Amino acid sequence: MVELGGDVVALTQVLCDIPSVSGDEKVIADAVEAALRPLAHLEVLRDGDAVVARTRLGRGTRVILAGHLDTVPIADNLPTVLSGSGDDEVLRGRGTVDMKGGVAVMLTLAAQLTEPRYDITYVFYDHEEVAAKLNGLGRLVRNHPDWLVGDFAVLGEPSDATVEAGCQGTMRVKITVPGVAAHAARPWRGVNAIHGAGAVLDRLRAYEPRQPIVEGLQYREALNAVRIEGGVAGNVIPDECVLYVNHRFAPDRDVAEAEQFLREYFAGFELEVTDAAAGARPGLDNPAAKELLALVGRTPAPKLGWTDLARFSGLGVPGVNFGPGDPLQAHTAEEHCPTPAIREALRVLTDWLS
Amino acid sequence: MVELGGDVVALTQVLCDIPSVSGDEKVIADAVEAALRPLAHLEVLRDGDAVVARTRLGRGTRVILAGHLDTVPIADNLPTVLSGSGDDEVLRGRGTVDMKGGVAVMLTLAAQLTEPRYDITYVFYDHEEVAAKLNGLGRLVRNHPDWLVGDFAVLGEPSDATVEAGCQGTMRVKITVPGVAAHAARPWRGVNAIHGAGAVLDRLRAYEPRQPIVEGLQYREALNAVRIEGGVAGNVIPDECVLYVNHRFAPDRDVAEAEQFLREYFAGFELEVTDAAAGARPGLDNPAAKELLALVGRTPAPKLGWTDLARFSGLGVPGVNFGPGDPLQAHTAEEHCPTPAIREALRVLTDWLS
Repeated sequence: MVELGGDVVALTQVLCDIPSVSGDEKVIADAVEAALRPLAHLEVLRDGDAVVARTRLGRGTRVILAGHLDTVPIADNLPTVLSGSGDDEVLRGRGTVDMKGGVAVMLTLAAQLTEPRYDITYVFYDHEEVAAKLNGLGRLVRNHPDWLVGDFAVLGEPSDATVEAGCQGTMRVKITVPGVAAHAARPWRGVNAIHGAGAVLDRLRAYEPRQPIVEGLQYREALNAVRIEGGVAGNVIPDECVLYVNHRFAPDRDVAEAEQFLREYFAGFELEVTDAAAGARPGLDNPAAKELLALVGRTPAPKLGWTDLARFSGLGVPGVNFGPGDPLQAHTAEEHCPTPAIREALRVLTDWLS
Repeated sequence: MVELGGDVVALTQVLCDIPSVSGDEKVIADAVEAALRPLAHLEVLRDGDAVVARTRLGRGTRVILAGHLDTVPIADNLPTVLSGSGDDEVLRGRGTVDMKGGVAVMLTLAAQLTEPRYDITYVFYDHEEVAAKLNGLGRLVRNHPDWLVGDFAVLGEPSDATVEAGCQGTMRVKITVPGVAAHAARPWRGVNAIHGAGAVLDRLRAYEPRQPIVEGLQYREALNAVRIEGGVAGNVIPDECVLYVNHRFAPDRDVAEAEQFLREYFAGFELEVTDAAAGARPGLDNPAAKELLALVGRTPAPKLGWTDLARFSGLGVPGVNFGPGDPLQAHTAEEHCPTPAIREALRVLTDWLS
C-alpha cells in the first residue's frame, strides 16, 4: 500500500520493497495509480503499466517530471535495509538509486503541490531497463503524445545532486569489409578481409573527437568499434570481416548529420546503419530551467550517455536529468543511496515548483 | 570384390564404388587386404583399417608408396560413371581424384611388380579427410614406425601429372590483445581492444613473405589472420580482441624456428601456439627421386600446402606427391578424372620401379 503525504524516505522504502523488475510492473503501477486517484487537483491517466497525472491550472508553462517504475533484476538485495542515522543514513537495496528515490520524490511533490507555480505532468513508466522497443515512455510517445506536451522535462534518474543536461545521440553502424577466400597455403590467390579491416581500424585509431559547446555545455563525441568478427576456418583466407562501430554525437547534430559524418569518415567502405537515436538539447535557455539550476547551485554537466530525455526532445521538449543517488551505484548488487540526497532533491524541487 | 591384375581404370571404378567415407573404411580395407594376401612376394600387415604390404628383397633402397582409402562424404556422386572414350574418357564420382585413382595404380603395381628394382612398401590408410588426430598414417607412425622405414616416399594424392615435392609446415597462433571495458559513451575511461588489434593487423599487412630455395625448389611462406573476434555489447568498449594467425613456413625451418620467428615478429603481444605441424623436405637429391623426375619429364613444383608427407619426413623419409587427377576437383560434387591420367601415372611408376 503506497500512501502519500508522509516521509519521502519511508515512501522510497515502500516503493523499493514492491518488486518491479521490467515486465513485472503491474503491482507497483496499480499502487501508484491508487495513491494518485484520490488527489482532486490531478487528472490521472493510464496506459499499460504507465501512469500519468497532471494539473490543469492554466499556467503559462508546463513542466514534466518523469521516472521509470521498473528495476533491473533483484540480486538478493531486497527488502531494503535502512542503516545509520542523520547525515549518514543510507538505504540499501535494488531500486534505491535507479530510481525509486526519484519516483518517491515525484510522488511526494504530486501530493503536496496542490497549487504549483507551473502546471506539472508526472509520468511514471515501465520497461526502461530493457530493449528500447519495449520502453514505456516510447509507447506513450506513440499512443498519447498529447499526454507529454510541456515546456521542460526533468528525468529523475540519479545524477548525484548535479543537473545533467540534454544527452548525446547514439548510432551504430555495421561496416562490412569484403575479401576473396583462398587456401591459407596460397593466400595470394585471395584477398584477406581481416587484413582489409585494418584500414577501418586505422581510421578509428586516428579519430579525434569533436567537442562542441551546446548551450554552454561542452559535449564530447566518440567513435568506437564495439565488435569485430571475421574468419571461416583455420586454413582459409577470410572472405569477410564485419565491424560494428558505435558513434556518440553531441545534441547539436541530428541523426541524419551523424550518418553523413560516418559515411564521409568511412568513405570507400560498405556501411549500414543498424540503430540510431537522436540526442536531446539541454534546454538551459528555458527560464524554468535557469531557476532550477540556481536552486541546485552547481554547474550543470553535459549528459554523455543516451537517456530517455531524447524521447521528450523528439516531441520538442528539452530537459535535464536530476535525481538522488550516485549513478555508478545503479545495477550493482550493493546499490544504496544516502537518504539525505533524497530529502535534498525533494527540497530543491519543492522550492522550484512552489 | 577387388581383383588385381586387370585394367587399372576398371579397378579405380570398383574401388570408388565401395563407399568409404572417413570412419567407414572397414569394407574397403578388408577388400584391399584380401586382394593382397594371396601375393606371395608381399608381406601383408594390418592395423585398424590401414593395410601395409611390402617386398623383402634385400634391395639397397626402399621406396614407400602411400595413399588413403577414405573419401569426403558422398554428394549423390556414386556409383561412378564412365563416359567418352580414348583420350577423352572420363571417370566421374566421389574418390575418382581424391584418391582412389592413385590407390588403384599402387594396387596394380603391388600385383605386377614381383621383382621391383627397389624394395617397395605399399601403405593404404584410413581417416585422412578428417581431424589430424584420427589420421591412419599418424596412427601407423605411433604404433608401427618400423612398417614405415624407407628412403623415399611417394604420396599418390592428385598432382595433375606433376611431381609436387616436400611440403610447407603450418603453425597457428592465438594473439590476445587486452583492453579495459568502459561505457561507449565515455570511452576515454577504457582502452579499446579492437582498436589495439589494429597494431597486429599493421604487422600482418606489412609482412613480406620469405621465399627460400630448398633443393632447387622455391617455396613461399605466408602469414595470415584467419579469424578475429572481439566485443561485448553494442555500448561497451571491448576489453579483449583475439586474432588467430596461420603461418606457413618453408621446409628449411622446423617448428621451433617458425615459433621463434612469430614471437619476434609479434613482439609485445601475447601469443600462444595452438597448433603446429612441421613441413617435409623434398628429398630430390635422392637418386631414386631423380629417376622419377626424369620419367615424369616436368619441372617439379614445391608443395605449399601441408600434406601427410610431413609424417614421413618426421621419420626421416623425404618424399613427393605424385598421382593422377587435378587436385582442384577434390571434394567437389563434380569430382572426375580423365582416365588417361590414371594410365599415365601407372606407366611412369611402372617404368620407374621395374
